[in-house]
Amino acid sequence: MAKHKIVSPRSQKAGLPPGSLVYIGDKPVQRVRITVLDYDEQKLEEREVKTVEECFRYKQTPTVSWINVVGLHPKVIQTLGEHYGIHPLIQEDILNTDQRPKLEEFESYLYIVFKRLAINGSAGQITSEQISLIVGDTFLLSFQESLGTVFNSVRERLRGGAGRMRKMDTDYLAYSLLDATVDHYFTAMEEVGEEIGILEEQLLKHPTPKTSSAIHRLKREMIFLRKAIWPLREVIGGLIRSESRLVKAQTRTYLRDVYDHIVQLIDTVETFRDLLSGMLDVYLSAMSNRLNEVIKVLTIITTIFIPLTFIAGIYGMNFEYMPELGHPFGYPGVLIVMAAVGLGMVAFFKKKKWM
Amino acid sequence: MAKHKIVSPRSQKAGLPPGSLVYIGDKPVQRVRITVLDYDEQKLEEREVKTVEECFRYKQTPTVSWINVVGLHPKVIQTLGEHYGIHPLIQEDILNTDQRPKLEEFESYLYIVFKRLAINGSAGQITSEQISLIVGDTFLLSFQESLGTVFNSVRERLRGGAGRMRKMDTDYLAYSLLDATVDHYFTAMEEVGEEIGILEEQLLKHPTPKTSSAIHRLKREMIFLRKAIWPLREVIGGLIRSESRLVKAQTRTYLRDVYDHIVQLIDTVETFRDLLSGMLDVYLSAMSNRLNEVIKVLTIITTIFIPLTFIAGIYGMNFEYMPELGHPFGYPGVLIVMAAVGLGMVAFFKKKKWM
Amino acid sequence: MAKHKIVSPRSQKAGLPPGSLVYIGDKPVQRVRITVLDYDEQKLEEREVKTVEECFRYKQTPTVSWINVVGLHPKVIQTLGEHYGIHPLIQEDILNTDQRPKLEEFESYLYIVFKRLAINGSAGQITSEQISLIVGDTFLLSFQESLGTVFNSVRERLRGGAGRMRKMDTDYLAYSLLDATVDHYFTAMEEVGEEIGILEEQLLKHPTPKTSSAIHRLKREMIFLRKAIWPLREVIGGLIRSESRLVKAQTRTYLRDVYDHIVQLIDTVETFRDLLSGMLDVYLSAMSNRLNEVIKVLTIITTIFIPLTFIAGIYGMNFEYMPELGHPFGYPGVLIVMAAVGLGMVAFFKKKKWM
Amino acid sequence: MAKHKIVSPRSQKAGLPPGSLVYIGDKPVQRVRITVLDYDEQKLEEREVKTVEECFRYKQTPTVSWINVVGLHPKVIQTLGEHYGIHPLIQEDILNTDQRPKLEEFESYLYIVFKRLAINGSAGQITSEQISLIVGDTFLLSFQESLGTVFNSVRERLRGGAGRMRKMDTDYLAYSLLDATVDHYFTAMEEVGEEIGILEEQLLKHPTPKTSSAIHRLKREMIFLRKAIWPLREVIGGLIRSESRLVKAQTRTYLRDVYDHIVQLIDTVETFRDLLSGMLDVYLSAMSNRLNEVIKVLTIITTIFIPLTFIAGIYGMNFEYMPELGHPFGYPGVLIVMAAVGLGMVAFFKKKKWM
Amino acid sequence: MAKHKIVSPRSQKAGLPPGSLVYIGDKPVQRVRITVLDYDEQKLEEREVKTVEECFRYKQTPTVSWINVVGLHPKVIQTLGEHYGIHPLIQEDILNTDQRPKLEEFESYLYIVFKRLAINGSAGQITSEQISLIVGDTFLLSFQESLGTVFNSVRERLRGGAGRMRKMDTDYLAYSLLDATVDHYFTAMEEVGEEIGILEEQLLKHPTPKTSSAIHRLKREMIFLRKAIWPLREVIGGLIRSESRLVKAQTRTYLRDVYDHIVQLIDTVETFRDLLSGMLDVYLSAMSNRLNEVIKVLTIITTIFIPLTFIAGIYGMNFEYMPELGHPFGYPGVLIVMAAVGLGMVAFFKKKKWM
Repeated sequence: MAKHKIVSPRSQKAGLPPGSLVYIGDKPVQRVRITVLDYDEQKLEEREVKTVEECFRYKQTPTVSWINVVGLHPKVIQTLGEHYGIHPLIQEDILNTDQRPKLEEFESYLYIVFKRLAINGSAGQITSEQISLIVGDTFLLSFQESLGTVFNSVRERLRGGAGRMRKMDTDYLAYSLLDATVDHYFTAMEEVGEEIGILEEQLLKHPTPKTSSAIHRLKREMIFLRKAIWPLREVIGGLIRSESRLVKAQTRTYLRDVYDHIVQLIDTVETFRDLLSGMLDVYLSAMSNRLNEVIKVLTIITTIFIPLTFIAGIYGMNFEYMPELGHPFGYPGVLIVMAAVGLGMVAFFKKKKWM
Repeated sequence: MAKHKIVSPRSQKAGLPPGSLVYIGDKPVQRVRITVLDYDEQKLEEREVKTVEECFRYKQTPTVSWINVVGLHPKVIQTLGEHYGIHPLIQEDILNTDQRPKLEEFESYLYIVFKRLAINGSAGQITSEQISLIVGDTFLLSFQESLGTVFNSVRERLRGGAGRMRKMDTDYLAYSLLDATVDHYFTAMEEVGEEIGILEEQLLKHPTPKTSSAIHRLKREMIFLRKAIWPLREVIGGLIRSESRLVKAQTRTYLRDVYDHIVQLIDTVETFRDLLSGMLDVYLSAMSNRLNEVIKVLTIITTIFIPLTFIAGIYGMNFEYMPELGHPFGYPGVLIVMAAVGLGMVAFFKKKKWM
Repeated sequence: MAKHKIVSPRSQKAGLPPGSLVYIGDKPVQRVRITVLDYDEQKLEEREVKTVEECFRYKQTPTVSWINVVGLHPKVIQTLGEHYGIHPLIQEDILNTDQRPKLEEFESYLYIVFKRLAINGSAGQITSEQISLIVGDTFLLSFQESLGTVFNSVRERLRGGAGRMRKMDTDYLAYSLLDATVDHYFTAMEEVGEEIGILEEQLLKHPTPKTSSAIHRLKREMIFLRKAIWPLREVIGGLIRSESRLVKAQTRTYLRDVYDHIVQLIDTVETFRDLLSGMLDVYLSAMSNRLNEVIKVLTIITTIFIPLTFIAGIYGMNFEYMPELGHPFGYPGVLIVMAAVGLGMVAFFKKKKWM
Repeated sequence: MAKHKIVSPRSQKAGLPPGSLVYIGDKPVQRVRITVLDYDEQKLEEREVKTVEECFRYKQTPTVSWINVVGLHPKVIQTLGEHYGIHPLIQEDILNTDQRPKLEEFESYLYIVFKRLAINGSAGQITSEQISLIVGDTFLLSFQESLGTVFNSVRERLRGGAGRMRKMDTDYLAYSLLDATVDHYFTAMEEVGEEIGILEEQLLKHPTPKTSSAIHRLKREMIFLRKAIWPLREVIGGLIRSESRLVKAQTRTYLRDVYDHIVQLIDTVETFRDLLSGMLDVYLSAMSNRLNEVIKVLTIITTIFIPLTFIAGIYGMNFEYMPELGHPFGYPGVLIVMAAVGLGMVAFFKKKKWM
Repeated sequence: MAKHKIVSPRSQKAGLPPGSLVYIGDKPVQRVRITVLDYDEQKLEEREVKTVEECFRYKQTPTVSWINVVGLHPKVIQTLGEHYGIHPLIQEDILNTDQRPKLEEFESYLYIVFKRLAINGSAGQITSEQISLIVGDTFLLSFQESLGTVFNSVRERLRGGAGRMRKMDTDYLAYSLLDATVDHYFTAMEEVGEEIGILEEQLLKHPTPKTSSAIHRLKREMIFLRKAIWPLREVIGGLIRSESRLVKAQTRTYLRDVYDHIVQLIDTVETFRDLLSGMLDVYLSAMSNRLNEVIKVLTIITTIFIPLTFIAGIYGMNFEYMPELGHPFGYPGVLIVMAAVGLGMVAFFKKKKWM
């Protein structure tokens, strides 16, 4: 289902001075797309810019300016970072897509980094990508590795303009982006939940090695989902407790709501882990039961017929003096003895409750 | 026994603005039933209202008004929520039945959400449903997914009017509802406890694959019970420590009592988990012992008779020159050799303590 | 060894108002025995009272009055509770024998509830019973489910009168009762320790399924012992840190001593759990080794004789034209071939280190 | 390697008043040996005393007096304890050799109790014994169960007199004794480490049931080492943080050094536990692999020869009308069929990668 | 891959006074190499000194002096330590290469000890060595066990002189050395990550005992990596929170960056542990599936042919009166019976889903 980078190649960076801008990730940056959404309660301007420099003028405007950068290119990030006063170490973090979700507070802006999940088409493959937010006074810079649909709903609501969003500041915009991301986590969880349900049924009816490898695969998924979700709780918790003037009081209520959702997600991830562990135990029990059954059949058949074959073997010997052979009741007598031995064995197995 | 939603379909909500009222759960809302219990020490009025608007007038009355809504309908909750000044995010939470038990304190009301368990009929199926309480100054709104019997005892005591209840405020009513719910948890635990007892006896006498799958099922149950009970402790703890004027000092003693009960429940859940894990180990040991025994029988029979059959086979060969065949003591001699080999094998097994 | 209630039937209480006095336990209350020990440094009065009311007058006396109630009867507890000013919820707790050990502090008294263990006769059966203490200014009420010997030593020392006890207050008496109880835990632990020692020896010499079920039984025991002992630490810790005027400074030194003993007990319980887990692993290894050995014997015998039997079978066929049969060296030749095959197999097994 | 008391018989104490001096341990006290080392920077007096009373006069002297008592005898400890003002409960603790390492601070002295390990001779048997220190202003009492060599190095350094020791107070002496004890732990750990190394090699080359039981034995060792070392950390931590005037500032630096050593020991114990658990897994994998291999050989031989033997059996039947028997190519034909069946089976196993 | 000392022989130190300088490690010290890098913003002097005494004059200079000592020789460390005022216990710690990573703060310098990893050549063997830093006002002493390349990049940057480094103080130099070390951890992790990836593929395609022993080996690696990395977090955390004047405010931002990297490393180590545990489970499932399959084949072949062989055996008996033998349809009749029995068995296995 999902393909996660186990660890991205950071080694190319070993030895470089801190703040060196090197892209660490696995999406080749072909083209950087920058879109700007500049709005206040009355009006909204939306455009795609050709050069980074076109974004510069949005820094001063009192309207909220959301600059969304798709594709992580060192040059672009450096230019933008310098104009907007982003610390070089943060510029480095934006490029390093192996970040743990975290929040860093500066005097004039907040830096939030987290992962978005996306489900790709019919194969249900989950991919995870890094999103970085720079939340300033009147601007919000967002950096994504590739084009996704997670933020579309936020964009739609801004265009619609009816709701609360257009009246609020950058912190509410940041909240909306986080909320949209968390909603997508739930979608992934539901899919996993459904798959678990199907596997549980398989386990009860007819468990096969495929069932077990599907369980193992989901367990592996959970390891990565967990790694993405747990630190997000601290991030949102940090925003709620933050003393930065950038986080307004009325936004905190909404952040607390996201916080609750993340706690719920964590709960679900842990429940899934417990369920999957239990399912593996069920699978192993089933395998063990089946092995026992197979071996019981083997034992029963073998132990019934091997002594009988031995008796037949005795009277198949070619000794000249075997008095039984000439006796008229020899054959039926042996058959009776054989039946007795066979039935005795069956009785023994019945007593042992193996049959 | 129990059927739990692994995760409810929240995905339909992805992208909607916060505070969007969408029912997330699996009980189709056919009809909403609203009952009102309005009382003070002297009198008690009990009625079922037809429209939401009929509940509005209870907001002002100095008497305690308990408005119980069965069936989660967005429209009803919104109308009620707006009149009683409930925050839109809380309205959303009431509808989302996948909530983790939690407490939220507002200036003019408390929001408490938790799960009730119910045992359905003879199959002993446990179902869990969400209950939301809005505890205001003189009103308490309770929202349930479907009709249950958990609150009947509280209603009876209110009607009786003899005790403490009619003299107390909404916080005591909330306590009573929580207490009744926790009492029902105990009932479920007892049932599980009895089932564990029966399974333990089965394990000792004659463990079958059915025993093991019953243990696995109970383990799975425990995962969900745990998820419902653990956060409840924080909820009650939060109420006890709450600085809200809505929670009176004399009620805290009673809340502490519920708190103790929940700690006891958690203790029991953890004990059950430990017991069930131990039982699985016992089952696996039993299986392994039985396998060993089966294979021992197979080995004994096979290793005794296979060499004997081989000897018989030798004298069953049709070579013309086999001097033993013509010897008068050939046959008894071979029989004696066979007996010796067989007894030798038996002695070997006796020595190895396999027989 | 021990038989523990998995969970007591509390369901009969579901729906009753808080403070309802219902006995929850499994000892039928046939007769309540109340004894009073009233003492100060100079004199000691000891008597068994017939009616609860006879105890009332001890509330006022400046001497220390220890009223010991054996048998939990709702009526008795209510009468006593009302006279001595015990909160109804506490009266309820005394009757509910499924309590978790805990301490509750009130203005005029302390409530301590814990479990005592007792070893019954030769079968070494451990039973656990609940003991409740109400520690007031000049009185101490103790409630037990049935008659036990745990407190005898305390009684003896009081009667002797030589030591510190007769000069001290109720808190020291409470300490003495707790200390006597903890001493009895040690006795139970020693017995378990001895049994573990015997089982460890069995494991090394000749492990049988009985050994494994004894280990499982002890593991189960530990789950319940743990449940009884862990919370006791908090109880004693609470007493030490208590700001109640009822706990005097000089008693705290003694309580710290009990605290150390309980920590030691917890340590021992955890050590036992670790030992038992390790022993189960040893048992499983032993089983697995034995299975391997059995199957090796089966494999060796089968794979040596099956090819030989096949060769014999070939020359047992009745074809008319089988040139080997008429050859004078046919028989010894085949015997030599058989010996070669057999020895080859043995060599193969030797090489594989299976023999 | 090691033989640990699982739990010492404390039951003989059940019922005695607190402070009762009963020796709890397994070394019969035959003779008590008391040595005194009295020193300051200038001079050092060393002697063995005959009676306890001879030690009394060292209490007043301004020199540091180290009184070392080997053999725990209630009478001796009581006499000494009374003269030096040791609390009766502490006297009791000195005798009870089942203590958990702990520190207790009193106005005029500190009580430190811990375990020393010693490796006995060639069998490498580790034994653990209790050491109690009473650290006063100018005296240090040490109590040991039996004569050991752990403190010899401290004694040597005192006699040498060159270093820091003779200038320092009792707290530095206590530190030196603790340090020497911890150094001996390291010796034990190294021995265990070496044994683990040997076992790891055995596991890779030729694991036998002996390897597994050695691993189990070491795991068991670790349980007891852990129990001895973990609480020692708290003891030293307590000394460092202690506000007692008996612990001087310059000694704290040295104590911090011991603290670091203990943390390192704990780290090593935990690492050993992890290693041993991993080794058990390796052993079980190896056993499982070997079982698979054995069973594969059994299956291959059996399934090749059993059908062949059956074919031979058919033509060994004595029916009068079996046309194949008279056919001149019957015998070679059957041999060819048999070869084909045998090779077919081999091909099947090759395809399954079992051969 | 890696070879770790399980525990270094500290026993040679048992009994020595604290501060005794004995080298504890496994690299024989053949030659000590001391290099000095003395720099400020304007100029940089780099030289290798012949004797320790040549380093003395750098203590006074206002420039930053980095004295790097390769090879731990007691004499050298003592001479250097005495001149630079290093506490004897710290000198001891520098020599004891079994240290846990830690930070110690003194009035005039900081002591930091940690491990560096290095990957040796093609075999990918990871070795760990101890690095000690003494961070003073204008000097930084670093002690390594042997020559490595970890610090080369730092040296390069200093020589280049373009960046921030030459303007900063010793704390920034210490940060740079720590950062370079942590970067090398990432390189090791990537290598492990790649190996895990390869093993996961092997597990899916064709797991062999080699796969399992590779997993066990990596698990073992993780135990040691964990031991090296976890305490490093506390070290860096301690530096960030340090109140020493030696750690400047602007350096703390950079230290926080290293801190984040270490948290990421810890996350990765834990993820690897989880992955490896999961992989072992997958391996065991695969083994168990394969065993089941093998035994099924054995059972099927055996239970089909053993009864048939028995039938053939019956008609191979040499009784004189066996009417079937003379019957013209005897032979084909028996063949038909055999076919029926065989097909019946096959049908039975089909029904059981074993075929």
